[in-house]
Amino acid sequence: MTQIVHTAAALIIGNELLSGKVADANLVVLARALRAVGVELRRVVMVLDHVQTIADEVRELARTHDVVFTSGGVGPTHDDVTIDAVALAFGAEVVESEPMAAMLRAHYGAALGEGHLRMARVPAGAELATNDEVRWPTVVMRNVWVLPGIPEVFRMKLPLLRGRIAGPEPFVSRAVYTNLDEPDLKPLLDRVVAAHADVEVGSYPTWRDAAYRTKLTFDGRDADAVARACDAFVALLPHGEPQRIE
Amino acid sequence: MTQIVHTAAALIIGNELLSGKVADANLVVLARALRAVGVELRRVVMVLDHVQTIADEVRELARTHDVVFTSGGVGPTHDDVTIDAVALAFGAEVVESEPMAAMLRAHYGAALGEGHLRMARVPAGAELATNDEVRWPTVVMRNVWVLPGIPEVFRMKLPLLRGRIAGPEPFVSRAVYTNLDEPDLKPLLDRVVAAHADVEVGSYPTWRDAAYRTKLTFDGRDADAVARACDAFVALLPHGEPQRIE
Repeated sequence: MTQIVHTAAALIIGNELLSGKVADANLVVLARALRAVGVELRRVVMVLDHVQTIADEVRELARTHDVVFTSGGVGPTHDDVTIDAVALAFGAEVVESEPMAAMLRAHYGAALGEGHLRMARVPAGAELATNDEVRWPTVVMRNVWVLPGIPEVFRMKLPLLRGRIAGPEPFVSRAVYTNLDEPDLKPLLDRVVAAHADVEVGSYPTWRDAAYRTKLTFDGRDADAVARACDAFVALLPHGEPQRIE
Repeated sequence: MTQIVHTAAALIIGNELLSGKVADANLVVLARALRAVGVELRRVVMVLDHVQTIADEVRELARTHDVVFTSGGVGPTHDDVTIDAVALAFGAEVVESEPMAAMLRAHYGAALGEGHLRMARVPAGAELATNDEVRWPTVVMRNVWVLPGIPEVFRMKLPLLRGRIAGPEPFVSRAVYTNLDEPDLKPLLDRVVAAHADVEVGSYPTWRDAAYRTKLTFDGRDADAVARACDAFVALLPHGEPQRIE
C-alpha cells in the first residue's frame, strides 16, 4: 500500500566524498526519483563515517521529515557504520536478520565467513523491502531507508519507492529560455512572483551557452496555477522572446 | 597572510538541486581544493532557497567549523537570498558596497539599472576578497565565504583560497587496488586499523570494474604513519596481490 509522504531528507555518508576522492552520484538520482513520485526533497546532509555523527543526523532528519534516505556505509568493513548508527539513532540493538543470513549462506556456501555475515546485520525492528527486481533486501528502519553507496547498486534500489511512497500530488514544471540577463528580467519576475504566490519561480543564468542566457522555471503541484504563472511571464517578455518554452 | 584552519563546512543552496533539475557540480571541486590546502571538509548541507533556513544553517556551520563556504543564491533575482541570509545569520544589515557599485557603474554605464546594483549588496562588515585573476570581489563575512552557484564561476573563485587559508599540515594519501572482496579483506583491515589508529583506512568495492574489485585508501597528515599503515596492509595480502599501489 502506498504511503502518502510530503517531505524527504537525504543523508549521504562517506569520507571519500568529503575528501573529494569521489564525486557523489546518488543525490541527483534520488532527487529525481522523489520528484517523479511527488515527494519534496527538503534537505541533504553529507557527513563522515563517524557512527555518532551519523546517528545524531539520522535521528534529527527522521524527526523533521516524513522519510529519510541514507546513502553509503553499508558494507562489511570497519568503515561501514551506517547500520550501527541507524540502530543507535533509535535506541535499537543490531541483530542478525535470519532471511538475509539464509540468503548469504545459500549464495556463499562453504566460503561463507564472518565478513559475509556482517551484511545480514540490521537494526532490531527494521523492515526488509524487496521486489521482483531487487532480491537483496533493503533495510527500512521506521521512516529511514538505508541505501548502499555504490552508484550502480543505489540506482537498482530506487524502483522500490514506486508503490511504497508517493507525494499528495505530482509536481508540474514549466521552463522558459530567454536571451535576457537576470538584471533585466528581475522587474518582470517580481511581478509574476507577487501575483502567483502558489508557484515557485526560479531563475538560472547560463554561462556562455549559445542557445539562451537565462532559464526561468515555474513549479508547483497545481498544473493550472503553474501554466498561469508561466503564461503571465511570457506575456511580459519583449518582442522576439522567449527562445523556447518547455 | 595565510590563516591556519582545521575544519570546513559547505552549504549548497538551490531549489534546482533538491528537485533534481540540476546536479551539483561544486561540492567535489571545493572538496578537492580544500584537500589540496590541507583543510578537512567535515560537513555539507544542501537546502532550498529559503532565507531563514539558510541563515540558521550559516550561523550553525560558522559556529562549529573554522570556515564555511556557501554555493549559490547570489544573483539579482527574487530567488537569490544568500546575501540576506548571511547578513541575518550574523545580525548584520545589508548595505551597498561602494567598490562593487563603482565596478558595476563602470561596466554597465547608461544601461545600469536597479537589477544590476543588487549585485553590489553585501552584509555590513563583510570583507571583499580579490586577486589578479578574480577581479569581481568575493564576499567573506567573518568565516563565511559566499561563492556563486554557476559551476564555471564557482571554479574561478577557488584560487582565492591559496595564500588565504591552509590546514596545519598537508594531507597524504596512498591507495591499494586488489582483486579481493570486502568480506575477505575485513580481517586484514581490522588488524591494520587496530595497529594504526592515526591513519584513516577506507575500503571501496567497485562494481564490475575489470581492473580491480576493492580499493583501499590510507590517509593522514603524517606521511610516515600513512606509509607504515599501507605497507603493513600490503604485507598481509596473499600471493599475487595487490594489483596496484598509488
